[in-house]
Amino acid sequence: MELRRFYVRPEDIEGDVITVSGNEYRHMTGVLRFKVGYQAIVCDNTGIDYWAIVEHIDKSAATLRIIERKKNNAELPYTLRLCCGLIKGEKLEIEVQKAVEIGVHQIQPFISRYTAEQDVRQDRLERIVLEACKQCGRAVLPRVMPIARFEDIFESNARYYMAYEKEDKHLLRDVVAKPHSQETVALVIGSEGGFSPEEVQMALSAGATTFSLGKRILRAETAAIVALGTFSALTEEL
Amino acid sequence: MELRRFYVRPEDIEGDVITVSGNEYRHMTGVLRFKVGYQAIVCDNTGIDYWAIVEHIDKSAATLRIIERKKNNAELPYTLRLCCGLIKGEKLEIEVQKAVEIGVHQIQPFISRYTAEQDVRQDRLERIVLEACKQCGRAVLPRVMPIARFEDIFESNARYYMAYEKEDKHLLRDVVAKPHSQETVALVIGSEGGFSPEEVQMALSAGATTFSLGKRILRAETAAIVALGTFSALTEEL
Repeated sequence: MELRRFYVRPEDIEGDVITVSGNEYRHMTGVLRFKVGYQAIVCDNTGIDYWAIVEHIDKSAATLRIIERKKNNAELPYTLRLCCGLIKGEKLEIEVQKAVEIGVHQIQPFISRYTAEQDVRQDRLERIVLEACKQCGRAVLPRVMPIARFEDIFESNARYYMAYEKEDKHLLRDVVAKPHSQETVALVIGSEGGFSPEEVQMALSAGATTFSLGKRILRAETAAIVALGTFSALTEEL
Repeated sequence: MELRRFYVRPEDIEGDVITVSGNEYRHMTGVLRFKVGYQAIVCDNTGIDYWAIVEHIDKSAATLRIIERKKNNAELPYTLRLCCGLIKGEKLEIEVQKAVEIGVHQIQPFISRYTAEQDVRQDRLERIVLEACKQCGRAVLPRVMPIARFEDIFESNARYYMAYEKEDKHLLRDVVAKPHSQETVALVIGSEGGFSPEEVQMALSAGATTFSLGKRILRAETAAIVALGTFSALTEEL
């Protein structure tokens, strides 16, 4: 079995010494009952896996010594963002968990006109991301952006692809351009209710490209997994 | 909301009259409490949606009269089979549910060397497929094949693509050939434990093509959803 993973901030590492505190400390010592001498992989979101050994545990932090630094090669060669309309908890959990496995770096939850579910909490989303990340061996902990209104998710320095159920000309494969390494690509997947014509117009005006996921109607979480999986399959190199 | 769907055999339709019996009758009358005059969509696995109205309900069957026949255009233009190693119930449920949404026609569960879960029942798989199918509006009810041993899933008249975690040269996009309409394509996705070298050799000897799903290790159910979604995205036409 692979070693357990913990996520810290870059400033928590000084030389060969890592300090784990807060929730990750509680998970390490309270839930997993780590003792001095246990080994772990620690990540600081820079793409490095730090193989480390627990040297000291006190009441609010654990200190680990780095044994080895390994570059984690599992990250996609560009920044991938999922913009996801809020859906019910269990489905959102599946959507976010799979998105993390597939390799997203940023998750931007949004509320749009036909979003029925609006009481999802930011901290809950962050917990789902953290758990998925620990399980799938990522070196980078995807960032959950604050829940936004649909009209506020577009920014000029990202490229947007939006799954739209009425798009009948272009599949994702027809519109994908391979991102360069500094680029941020955002896939926009609606809630179960889809998008209003005004929202589609707004997305197009903001430079988004709409695409179809085929002739079958997919649930929101399936649409996200299929779109992200297809996008990464079309743009990754081995 | 779209009308409820029920699945019958072709021989249950005579002229404009459909007889719904068995489990589908119990679902219609017992669970959904259908009455005379209710409308439904009935499918007989021929790709036609029969829009029909309930004319008579007795103790073991309901009789419906066909109002309109519509060709269902949502089916993939070839036969898609998922060969899936058995995994735990909840995960298998997600895998099969999403596979049905994405458009598979056949599901071939298998037990291989590293399969931990072996007590999945055939009827449980069939129930998952039926429920997913009703929810996503398919005209064809995917067939669940009897649970088989891995070495018995290969047959000469299908084309096999197998997700293999040690394949490091070819992504799915590199090996996909567009299927013709009479072809059966099978995507082989292992259990959590992956495949033994002997099993990979057996698959290759049987003509299977191995592919990678990228640099991140996906869970079994995510691998299936991503592989099926990518395959359909690469081979479907709008």
